[in-house]
Amino acid sequence: MQFIKASIITIGDELLIGQVIDTNSAYIAQSLNKIGVTVTKRIAVGDDKNAILDALSNTSKQSNIVIITGGLGPTADDITKPLLNEYFGGKLVIHQPSLDHITDIFLNKYKRPLIERNIKQAEVPDVCEVLFNENGTAPGMLFEKEGVLYFSLPGVPHEMKGLVDKYVISKIKQSFKTPSIVHRTLLTAGLGESFLAEIIADFENALPSHIKLAYLPNFGMVRLRLTGTSDNENELITNMEAVFAELKVKVQAYLVTDKDEAMEVVVGGLLRSNNQTVATAESCTGGYIGHLLSKHAGSSQFYTGGIISYDNRIKTEFLDVSTEILHTVGAVSKEAVEQMAVAVRAKMNTDYGVSVSGIMGPSGQTDEKPLGMVWIGVANKEKVYSKVLYLRFDRSRNIEVTATQAINLLRLLIINKI
Amino acid sequence: MQFIKASIITIGDELLIGQVIDTNSAYIAQSLNKIGVTVTKRIAVGDDKNAILDALSNTSKQSNIVIITGGLGPTADDITKPLLNEYFGGKLVIHQPSLDHITDIFLNKYKRPLIERNIKQAEVPDVCEVLFNENGTAPGMLFEKEGVLYFSLPGVPHEMKGLVDKYVISKIKQSFKTPSIVHRTLLTAGLGESFLAEIIADFENALPSHIKLAYLPNFGMVRLRLTGTSDNENELITNMEAVFAELKVKVQAYLVTDKDEAMEVVVGGLLRSNNQTVATAESCTGGYIGHLLSKHAGSSQFYTGGIISYDNRIKTEFLDVSTEILHTVGAVSKEAVEQMAVAVRAKMNTDYGVSVSGIMGPSGQTDEKPLGMVWIGVANKEKVYSKVLYLRFDRSRNIEVTATQAINLLRLLIINKI
Repeated sequence: MQFIKASIITIGDELLIGQVIDTNSAYIAQSLNKIGVTVTKRIAVGDDKNAILDALSNTSKQSNIVIITGGLGPTADDITKPLLNEYFGGKLVIHQPSLDHITDIFLNKYKRPLIERNIKQAEVPDVCEVLFNENGTAPGMLFEKEGVLYFSLPGVPHEMKGLVDKYVISKIKQSFKTPSIVHRTLLTAGLGESFLAEIIADFENALPSHIKLAYLPNFGMVRLRLTGTSDNENELITNMEAVFAELKVKVQAYLVTDKDEAMEVVVGGLLRSNNQTVATAESCTGGYIGHLLSKHAGSSQFYTGGIISYDNRIKTEFLDVSTEILHTVGAVSKEAVEQMAVAVRAKMNTDYGVSVSGIMGPSGQTDEKPLGMVWIGVANKEKVYSKVLYLRFDRSRNIEVTATQAINLLRLLIINKI
Repeated sequence: MQFIKASIITIGDELLIGQVIDTNSAYIAQSLNKIGVTVTKRIAVGDDKNAILDALSNTSKQSNIVIITGGLGPTADDITKPLLNEYFGGKLVIHQPSLDHITDIFLNKYKRPLIERNIKQAEVPDVCEVLFNENGTAPGMLFEKEGVLYFSLPGVPHEMKGLVDKYVISKIKQSFKTPSIVHRTLLTAGLGESFLAEIIADFENALPSHIKLAYLPNFGMVRLRLTGTSDNENELITNMEAVFAELKVKVQAYLVTDKDEAMEVVVGGLLRSNNQTVATAESCTGGYIGHLLSKHAGSSQFYTGGIISYDNRIKTEFLDVSTEILHTVGAVSKEAVEQMAVAVRAKMNTDYGVSVSGIMGPSGQTDEKPLGMVWIGVANKEKVYSKVLYLRFDRSRNIEVTATQAINLLRLLIINKI
């Protein structure tokens, strides 16, 4: 079996000082992986000529494909294009279709004159194949040297994605015979990584060498991923189905989904197929649960809306949490979240209500209520249920974990497990 | 001036198939940068012995410090610890304080018996210095070889952060004399990258060689970052102040903040110092504006709450958007967002209201209302103002851009610019 190996080089000082988180690499890796190309290395370097040259020379020895993103903008700190031009021995020439496109964007869309910097963006090395960038002003470029394909793409995520989808994948498929890679992923909830590992130890030890198992833990939820690689696609699919079915049986009691999808997508799917709706009442998550439920296309079928009751006054005025509750047990309590879930469901006339109230940090704790103490609640027409969590992360992670746990609690109510 | 160079190696197949986005590297890079250590390279490799060894040998030649994260979990796909043990010529021994800590976590916190896998987590090479991990079960490790420091840290973000803050930074400061690095960052809104570059071209060309300028554009907002490096800290600070003051004057008309902070932090600061409050009425962003306003500590001082009116019924019942508006101009209209901003402000009794309604994609467009068409609105007691955006990103980016633009519109209202 021939492995097609790819490396990804991301360029930009902002990546090395940590100002920007690299999401481009993940998208590129996913896209390559789907067509059976194995990403073996990702390197991030700054806007520095020697570092970029070193990364090119290091990756070109080990890869069939090198994907480079970033450094193609109109400003002086972007040095990638002249460097690639020199590396591949070309000279810079104007690419007329790109110039026409840039001119159109500036004159008709931005209603501003084209300046010299913008025109320079249409320059490309004459030794490359231009990948027309319909989403932006920096053209993509494809170079070939000693059998290795080099793609240079802009760093702006939606421009990079456009070029990957339109050109990179098809060029690779034309140039290489890629092996088949099959992934099967499932999500479990309610059991930690090491206990899960015990349950499936025999299964894991018996896996054939062309199928690997990986654990991706996330606070009480663990994603398990099987990856199989083979030249024989049909045989691999059959194999993987059998092995995956066995794994599902092993973890059945904790299984959330046998697809590679987020918790909120699982719950959205359940609601949609039941033709049911949900409303949210959020205090400490401040809208994040609403965001998770609505970020995926099609969510208007099941997500009706919510009340963000950040201030306690809003809990009373909009969700009927009595001042007595607030004065006795407080806003972070079983009583408060149960009332919130019940009220938002009734007022928004939905099948389910979800609520949260907690102390996210870094301050706000009391003697009885430590940092990270969070109540989550769910209600339908017949019943209401709540649960307390003690989280020990930073504020932003506490918000994420709370939201996912609340959505999982909703899932358990929908499937009649609570 | 001596540059202390660091490389970051992140280990895990999930990074190479794009299942997980690497946020650890950004945190480590920021932390190192603050103490004057220059990160020159980041490499991500899979759970593969040869790839990890290759990354170690590649970075050790070019770095004074190598930081390795990931691969220390309790499961069989985590191979980093035995590999490092072999690489540095040690043998694995139990680290008693870590074993006591792991035992305590399992018996007292999880209320579960310790299993063999968990005990193995307390094993460390006898040639390393153990970095005690109070946040988790995998101890960190420090190795030294030929003057290079190697830190091996767990991949779980809050565990990694705890070890960086508690041990890594102080160990580096003890071992190296680091140069001074000063960053100054400002945020502009209302002018694209290339036009901004024209305005500051003379400034940029006149910069001394030890000060660099970088552009970080983001849909109509551009962050500009100056980075100065020197052995003489006092002189550098004086220099940077002067240069940064000059830059601020150049971009004055578009300046949002002269700190490295997010738009919502700027607006939160304005509200807090004015002792004012805001409420949100969100349709297409589904709670994301509420999330941005509340994700930072201290937001309860200015963020009161909001209505997520995802379904049009909620716009009518909770925000008094008339059915006439919905039937004539529709929910994505000037009339609807202005009514939403006015109503949420009045009902939640805040100083300001912010609202959005739009078509985020991938479907839902009509002949008159294209995908990415979004109305944003703001109101105070005296006036209401709205604006339409035409976005051309994917759903998730449309949500982000809409939220930031709406918060910027609120900023303009607060500072009396609209």
